[in-house]
Amino acid sequence: MGQTAKQTQHVNPAQQARLLIRSGKHTRHTAGLAHGYVQGNLCILPAEYAVEFAAFCQRNPKPCPLIGMGAPGDPHLPTLAQDLDIRTDLPRYRVFREGQLVDEPTTIIDLWRDDLVSFVLGCSFSFEQAMIEAGIPLRHIERGDNVAMYKTNIDTVPAGRFRGKMVVSMRPLKPADAIRAIQITSRFPNVHGAPVHIGLPELLGIGDLEQPYVGDPPHMRADEIPVFWACGVTPQVAVEHARPPLCITHQPGAMVITDLLNTSLAAF
Amino acid sequence: MGQTAKQTQHVNPAQQARLLIRSGKHTRHTAGLAHGYVQGNLCILPAEYAVEFAAFCQRNPKPCPLIGMGAPGDPHLPTLAQDLDIRTDLPRYRVFREGQLVDEPTTIIDLWRDDLVSFVLGCSFSFEQAMIEAGIPLRHIERGDNVAMYKTNIDTVPAGRFRGKMVVSMRPLKPADAIRAIQITSRFPNVHGAPVHIGLPELLGIGDLEQPYVGDPPHMRADEIPVFWACGVTPQVAVEHARPPLCITHQPGAMVITDLLNTSLAAF
Repeated sequence: MGQTAKQTQHVNPAQQARLLIRSGKHTRHTAGLAHGYVQGNLCILPAEYAVEFAAFCQRNPKPCPLIGMGAPGDPHLPTLAQDLDIRTDLPRYRVFREGQLVDEPTTIIDLWRDDLVSFVLGCSFSFEQAMIEAGIPLRHIERGDNVAMYKTNIDTVPAGRFRGKMVVSMRPLKPADAIRAIQITSRFPNVHGAPVHIGLPELLGIGDLEQPYVGDPPHMRADEIPVFWACGVTPQVAVEHARPPLCITHQPGAMVITDLLNTSLAAF
Repeated sequence: MGQTAKQTQHVNPAQQARLLIRSGKHTRHTAGLAHGYVQGNLCILPAEYAVEFAAFCQRNPKPCPLIGMGAPGDPHLPTLAQDLDIRTDLPRYRVFREGQLVDEPTTIIDLWRDDLVSFVLGCSFSFEQAMIEAGIPLRHIERGDNVAMYKTNIDTVPAGRFRGKMVVSMRPLKPADAIRAIQITSRFPNVHGAPVHIGLPELLGIGDLEQPYVGDPPHMRADEIPVFWACGVTPQVAVEHARPPLCITHQPGAMVITDLLNTSLAAF
């Protein structure tokens, strides 16, 4: 009864966004929706692969910070939001079979099975909000670009069939802002946390910073140093290696919107 | 009575070190004495200059973190240690008149005056202990060198006659250790805290890292980045500008030993 009362009393901006998406009225990216609420990356796998993937996330918490996990066959993730239905509440999905992209539907009701397990991973939107609120300029956001991402020479810790190199995102920052950014993102271990590297891209096997693996060129300036965070694209590389018969993810940018506040993820 | 009981019950290693120094049996540097206890920089000034210097410290907390301040004429600093007598408890002092070094005595009993005010500033020994305990190698300690220090192009915030450029210490660190070092030292705002700069010495006006202003060459390696902390030599530069008729400091390395534990300075 308390729960029902709560739901009728107040629909929060995150729930409003999910209702809009669930109704089919929003099929684009979720940037700017439900400001201040945690958004996450989605990865759905058959149970046969799910245990290995859970272990992969546990062993690689910086690129794969698990903030929600469903029971097999259950499309609900009540710790992220009471009303969340993972089959309908994302604007657009990607369906992979044997590692190949085969479809980009707006719901996965028809694909749902009793053995599917949902994983939601934290994403850098949360710590970027904290950085912006601290007055740290982020070039890719100012330019309306995607953040620059690079495949590194760092091996993730394998778990069963899941393995591969770590992907990192890079933000060019002035030295004082880089120090502040390390402090701020250290408070957010559930959304990649502190950087994994700073300053010397060649040590990660990155030749030319202006030619990222994914995303837009970063447009580094001479008074900036490159700061690298573990990136949520890493599990996609691991899934490519594992080649499960079915894998469903969000379409890049079209995220899971949760009822958690970004600020609630701060560790101290 | 509680206090007397406490003192007879237990003499801690910091107090033991002070008693040894007070008796005249130890006149060298204090590195390695009373492991785990906070050591500090000393600056004693006439009251006429003390208010300005207190303001200088307040405005420049990173180079000048004030951990203890005496009342005019009082040689005791009970918040640092109940039995501390600032006139006898350091192994060796430096006496400056009009900014010129004139003597290096082992006590300042004869110089003490009713208008002298003692300032004790936190020093990097405390955060270096935390870094070493976290497994971060520090080249200058491994080599038995003094840390490399540089005069920067950063102006301190002036206060009255005290002004000058900020001096920084630099430790070469591998990128992952640099990130960890920022996290660790951020917890210790009373002993210089987080770095003030990382990665690009030319932005601080430093031409050649291997030619420090004070201390030994850092012996940088190709897989390391330079990490810069505000340094306790900064107030000495400010005192040189102010040229007070009398200023008494510790001899470099021969510090004030307090009863505070380094770990007690951690902010979180």
